[in-house]
Amino acid sequence: MSERYRHLLSATGRQVNESAIRRMGITAARLPDLVSFAPGYPDASRFPWDELRDIAARLLDGHDPSVLQYGPTRGDAALVEALVPVQRARGIDAAPANILVTTGSQQGIDLVARVFLDPGDVALAELPTYTGAISAFRNSGARVAGVRQDDGGIDVEDLERVCARERASGARVKLLYLTPNFQNPTGVLLDAARRAALVEWAVRADVLIVEDDPYGTLYFDEALAGAATRPLCADDADGCVVYLSTFSKTLAPGFRVGWMVAPAELAERCEAVKQSLDLLTGTLDQRVVLEALRADLPGRLAPRLRDTYRERLAVMETALTDALGGTLTWARPSGGFFLWARLPRDVDDETLLARAIERGLVFVTGSAFYVDGSGHDRIRLSYSWAHSDQIREGATRLAAAVEACRAGATRDPATTPEH
Amino acid sequence: MSERYRHLLSATGRQVNESAIRRMGITAARLPDLVSFAPGYPDASRFPWDELRDIAARLLDGHDPSVLQYGPTRGDAALVEALVPVQRARGIDAAPANILVTTGSQQGIDLVARVFLDPGDVALAELPTYTGAISAFRNSGARVAGVRQDDGGIDVEDLERVCARERASGARVKLLYLTPNFQNPTGVLLDAARRAALVEWAVRADVLIVEDDPYGTLYFDEALAGAATRPLCADDADGCVVYLSTFSKTLAPGFRVGWMVAPAELAERCEAVKQSLDLLTGTLDQRVVLEALRADLPGRLAPRLRDTYRERLAVMETALTDALGGTLTWARPSGGFFLWARLPRDVDDETLLARAIERGLVFVTGSAFYVDGSGHDRIRLSYSWAHSDQIREGATRLAAAVEACRAGATRDPATTPEH
Repeated sequence: MSERYRHLLSATGRQVNESAIRRMGITAARLPDLVSFAPGYPDASRFPWDELRDIAARLLDGHDPSVLQYGPTRGDAALVEALVPVQRARGIDAAPANILVTTGSQQGIDLVARVFLDPGDVALAELPTYTGAISAFRNSGARVAGVRQDDGGIDVEDLERVCARERASGARVKLLYLTPNFQNPTGVLLDAARRAALVEWAVRADVLIVEDDPYGTLYFDEALAGAATRPLCADDADGCVVYLSTFSKTLAPGFRVGWMVAPAELAERCEAVKQSLDLLTGTLDQRVVLEALRADLPGRLAPRLRDTYRERLAVMETALTDALGGTLTWARPSGGFFLWARLPRDVDDETLLARAIERGLVFVTGSAFYVDGSGHDRIRLSYSWAHSDQIREGATRLAAAVEACRAGATRDPATTPEH
Repeated sequence: MSERYRHLLSATGRQVNESAIRRMGITAARLPDLVSFAPGYPDASRFPWDELRDIAARLLDGHDPSVLQYGPTRGDAALVEALVPVQRARGIDAAPANILVTTGSQQGIDLVARVFLDPGDVALAELPTYTGAISAFRNSGARVAGVRQDDGGIDVEDLERVCARERASGARVKLLYLTPNFQNPTGVLLDAARRAALVEWAVRADVLIVEDDPYGTLYFDEALAGAATRPLCADDADGCVVYLSTFSKTLAPGFRVGWMVAPAELAERCEAVKQSLDLLTGTLDQRVVLEALRADLPGRLAPRLRDTYRERLAVMETALTDALGGTLTWARPSGGFFLWARLPRDVDDETLLARAIERGLVFVTGSAFYVDGSGHDRIRLSYSWAHSDQIREGATRLAAAVEACRAGATRDPATTPEH
């Protein structure tokens, strides 16, 4: 940033940075023949194109002007109604007064940040956590305090410790952001006993839980369909959970249709703030999603999506083992889009990424997901998007990149003489 | 708001209020046979339904996965490119590095608020101005200071006075929000000489001008096509104007596709913040708009839209004169969606609205658009949405409501005994 505008910027305007993921996307776009394990994109070949095309064509026949008109900030009334049974299927008893349609669940996170966080306030989040949540909280001037997690999810004892420590230092701890089901980036599924403990803790600690659940229906084992993936919100008798979800992973992200479930008075505040953010979520998008729900498209698609991503994970695990032996280690995720790999001691995430990009591979560095500067021993590999042959090619390139790191070698054309 | 959550809310969360317009929308929805002069909705019968249906069906044939996939925060690259000639037609020489696609131009306003305004900062705006801008600035904790305007637009002398006064009091004055073409709510077209004076002032005063231009192509006289509606941004050699526009009025609002033109380093900051707001604007929406631009739909539609709204205005003026004689007065707008009527001395906007709702008519109170508590002698009547017979019926109801105000009468069933 030049000096020209610095004094006109807000604190947010001055501190905002491109996310690591986005920077990599830009780098990636310039490379031919790139293999990308970076983005958390769903597989577009599984979008129900024919059905969506028919739905859109019907909606746009001109008989219903509301399809392309402004509409209520809360969301299309019929869509809000249709979300009631979607929530009920997840164990959550929500009335329309609890539901707000959001422009993707990212807007849900931003709304929470704006309605709850003042500059200097503290949001708690898992170490590591979703980068889009970190940015949204920081863009409201808040500080994000990290809480340890293990293979069973967030560590409740550490949570109590961190919350107490922050409060002892005078900070207002307002909320805990959590992704209990197949977390981004770790793929971890939060232990059922901890779910109950967290809701109890939230009441006791007077902290709001912001439960982000984009992947909850994308489990790889039917045994996880019930209690194991039950949202915390379903057992929240005290109104201390704000639940966020989206159709981005289960239908298509291009529609930008997500939703929030919250105590009615909080849903109302979020609705009022949403009005100044974008007035309303796209009406055609909302109506397409509504018709898709009426046709039970997400429900009919889900088994196929679960099969697809489970198979992709298997391909990636095999490819990584074939190409790298035991060089990388990971806990097998039981759902979602991400394999969270631990690097060997002599390789760090940023150097590895640089070597990988030289070889036509991108992924996300582990440290991008940590608010405490750690995570350099991890990388996030998405298996949701690349096809099987790309996954195998990517694993081969990753092995070469690890090799290059260890050799201290570089093939960066900017630093390597060409003659 | 109950006490339950008050201590968890941010300053924004505590202070946010439903807009007056939105409240009226809710009231209105409950009334049968309502006539609405309230919303700034375009006429949906003028949306190019057939072309849009064909475009959507082609895009959704499944051959291009990017149509429903995540995409760049900056906007679809081809759409950004396609906006260059759209800007050029308005006299603005913008490169893709200057352009950011926004989720409606409301998001453009919110981005500006977040990138430039800290709590306590001052945003200048016309008295009266668009309520969505007032909310966005206040939701960033800023104060909005009003500047007088007359039939030629904002009063540059008063602008200098207000800016100097605010700065003398220690406030940081960061930006001036303006709608130079057919302003919402007044319909005023900013005088050409003042446009030049404002750009000079902005450089001198070191203030950013945020130029909102949703209605610029909806003039009612071909003589206004050129210099008269030329954006300030077109003559900004010093990078002190951020320009916002939208396809909501010229194509359809349901797509939520707007855009920003700004100095490249500011566009970059806004893009980085947008990432935490909603990641990206809906991809299907962007692609439909892109194809519409390629087919020159907005250009081919514009003459018909100008005719439509000019005719509606004529119907409203005649109907108001027929029903109310000289009771209401107004300056005829030369473009846009709104007739800004002055009430007689013995009638105030809020009482009139209450009497009007009882008679099945809504409009927006003048005071909703003022940041200084004034404006009770004004109402905003939209002619863009209601059909001709509704406009005439609305004028009749408005006359009855004025009559009722003057008689001090009420027909409110809650306060009038039924027997």
